Amino acid sequence: MIVELINTGSELMLGRVLNTHQQWLCRRLADVGAVVTRQIAVPDTADAITAAVRESLSRADLVVTTGGLGPTSDDLTRQAIADMLGLALHEERSVAERIENYFKARNRPMPPSTRIQAMVPKGAIVLINQNGTAPGLALRIEPNPFRQATQALLIMLPGPPRELRPMFTESALPLIKSHWSDLNFVCRTLRSAEIGESVVEETIGPLLAPLVSRGLELGYCARPGRVDVRMAARGPGAGSLVAQAETVTRSQLGGCIYGADDDDMETVIVRALSERRETLALAESCTGGLIAHSITNVPGASAVLLAGIVCYSNDSKIRLLGVDPDIIAQHGAVSEACCRQMAEGALKVSGATFALAVTGIAGPSGGTPQKPVGTVFIGLAGPFQTVVERRHNPFDRETFKQVTVNQALNLLRRNALCPNG
Amino acid sequence: MIVELINTGSELMLGRVLNTHQQWLCRRLADVGAVVTRQIAVPDTADAITAAVRESLSRADLVVTTGGLGPTSDDLTRQAIADMLGLALHEERSVAERIENYFKARNRPMPPSTRIQAMVPKGAIVLINQNGTAPGLALRIEPNPFRQATQALLIMLPGPPRELRPMFTESALPLIKSHWSDLNFVCRTLRSAEIGESVVEETIGPLLAPLVSRGLELGYCARPGRVDVRMAARGPGAGSLVAQAETVTRSQLGGCIYGADDDDMETVIVRALSERRETLALAESCTGGLIAHSITNVPGASAVLLAGIVCYSNDSKIRLLGVDPDIIAQHGAVSEACCRQMAEGALKVSGATFALAVTGIAGPSGGTPQKPVGTVFIGLAGPFQTVVERRHNPFDRETFKQVTVNQALNLLRRNALCPNG
Repeated sequence: MIVELINTGSELMLGRVLNTHQQWLCRRLADVGAVVTRQIAVPDTADAITAAVRESLSRADLVVTTGGLGPTSDDLTRQAIADMLGLALHEERSVAERIENYFKARNRPMPPSTRIQAMVPKGAIVLINQNGTAPGLALRIEPNPFRQATQALLIMLPGPPRELRPMFTESALPLIKSHWSDLNFVCRTLRSAEIGESVVEETIGPLLAPLVSRGLELGYCARPGRVDVRMAARGPGAGSLVAQAETVTRSQLGGCIYGADDDDMETVIVRALSERRETLALAESCTGGLIAHSITNVPGASAVLLAGIVCYSNDSKIRLLGVDPDIIAQHGAVSEACCRQMAEGALKVSGATFALAVTGIAGPSGGTPQKPVGTVFIGLAGPFQTVVERRHNPFDRETFKQVTVNQALNLLRRNALCPNG
Repeated sequence: MIVELINTGSELMLGRVLNTHQQWLCRRLADVGAVVTRQIAVPDTADAITAAVRESLSRADLVVTTGGLGPTSDDLTRQAIADMLGLALHEERSVAERIENYFKARNRPMPPSTRIQAMVPKGAIVLINQNGTAPGLALRIEPNPFRQATQALLIMLPGPPRELRPMFTESALPLIKSHWSDLNFVCRTLRSAEIGESVVEETIGPLLAPLVSRGLELGYCARPGRVDVRMAARGPGAGSLVAQAETVTRSQLGGCIYGADDDDMETVIVRALSERRETLALAESCTGGLIAHSITNVPGASAVLLAGIVCYSNDSKIRLLGVDPDIIAQHGAVSEACCRQMAEGALKVSGATFALAVTGIAGPSGGTPQKPVGTVFIGLAGPFQTVVERRHNPFDRETFKQVTVNQALNLLRRNALCPNG
């Protein structure tokens, strides 16, 4: 099954916005076994859109476009594709009514230009837009004039993410699944922390080789401090093959696995703490609030995070966390002793069950031979003896922060939330 | 000038990573007048890479690829392109030495597989990698075998952003500029906060119309809480045209403009505070550490940010900031009175020049008719009477945080850093 994705929009070509559609759609399509084989972004001119769609139809079974379905003069996707395929447009009464009702419900006059969104190419399936006025459109193209002896499915989605995402999930995906009902694709991703990609591969690769020879697709994806293992299979035995692979992977990587599929580390932690009615405090120096930001991105974090203290200066470590000034004078603010006092201080001032503390040298300056840039101490205090670990993360400033946050959250997870993991 | 960008990587097609290269490179290329006309992402197989590069060369003057230059078995860009163009590879001594030194400097043994990165196609220009082992490569292709009577420049960049970005800025961009020295393109972006896109357009659009008729390209880009105005021109009078447009825009938008080109709000603030030797403290409830994270992403933030307190619970507002429990009981934690005490408390405990405080309802739950989800109070304390503003940001959780952080930083900028702006 050959799948191509076309993103239209001049703002993409100017680099003014990030193309989040690509990752989101590629991920959802891969999860049902329809891996995108090519993605193309073009400006929103009729010529560029027509050329891209024609080329994709000459190669692919499924073509998905995003953008250009709105009411303004640069929304040209609907007309350009209808023209290219020689399909007349007609006003679809049900769509026009939805648009009228959309404005009525908001007590706003309906701009005449919005009516163009009710124009539908002959034979198209309308995909309802729950969050806007532009419907999506799907066309079964058979025979496909650009690729001999084949048929294709062409799906047009609107540009705004909050319109595109529910429409894809609720309307486009069922259509794709019914069109390729023989996909029978199973996919599972296990997510691990603090173990390198090559170590993961060496550990599980040989044990999974027999399953790979029986059709298991095995993939690794590494980001700073995290490695995802993706296991997928197709056909009648797919479910069992993936389940066996998961058992092997879990038995080998054990406590390094923090979640599956879409689980984030911070979501796993907020969920576990909530369930156990336990709470957390933070004392962040070099991560500068990123642990707190990550935790508070999870809905429900307010039940879990009591306080976070970003103590960038020595003075704030002393004033807010009760760190002993002599400790800083003797060992420095980036030291095991200071980290320990930060964690214990955060626990005390907040009254939380656990406290994480981080102090280190993010760089680009501030390193010494004994403590080079990238040195970091991570501490965990709680109803047990305080733990402090030393790490070296010699990366650029933002990567340093990300990796360190990940290590700190994983320290909490390993020691407090799954001590037998 | 026709420009195409090819991103290689199977992880892109699986939707496991976000393609940030597209925006970053498109933006930098647009800023020198080389707007990307098509962007393509393909998996890292030799066939897919070869097909994409050949097609791009059949259309474009400049082709840029990302990824596939590393040492592992799925790094195929270098070899695939050399094969397609019929160019032999040879080991470049200077590159091999750089790779050896890279490992020596880190006291790590050099894996034999890394040596392949010193292989260079005949005639290629080597682009030095300051942050990794894989060099970039540039090829002048003349004549271009895939497009009659033209020549092309093909630039291959490595995949990791921290390697790609400095290499592009320091080596690739100068090469592009020298290749197209007649671009004579001038571009200036002014960045404004807390003013809507349509208001910006209505305010400056009519006044800039005469300059547009003389060749000024005018563009607006809106993101939550921020609008960029992009002014560009080509040819002999470009500099003067853009300068006139900047004068008009500044005269109309005045204090709403917080920076130009790549200035971030947080960079502008850290720079201004550093220059004035002033300091900052933060008391964050609903933004959950994102103000601190934004500020500490700027190198040099440690001279400016004394302390940040993420006070998610009522108890932490009382314990850490000295908020009066009666104020919370009477007005609630999301109130003007509480916000005022948070700002003043942060000022007191930190000893900073200024303190910002934020308290609000991020949602998805927790709203009331009087204080619906999205309600937020933003306070600023300093050597003047404390200011508290009420805003309503009814967005999803992450957008809410971003918009609120932007408003808080802008409150500081307007009141403390450019009071006459």
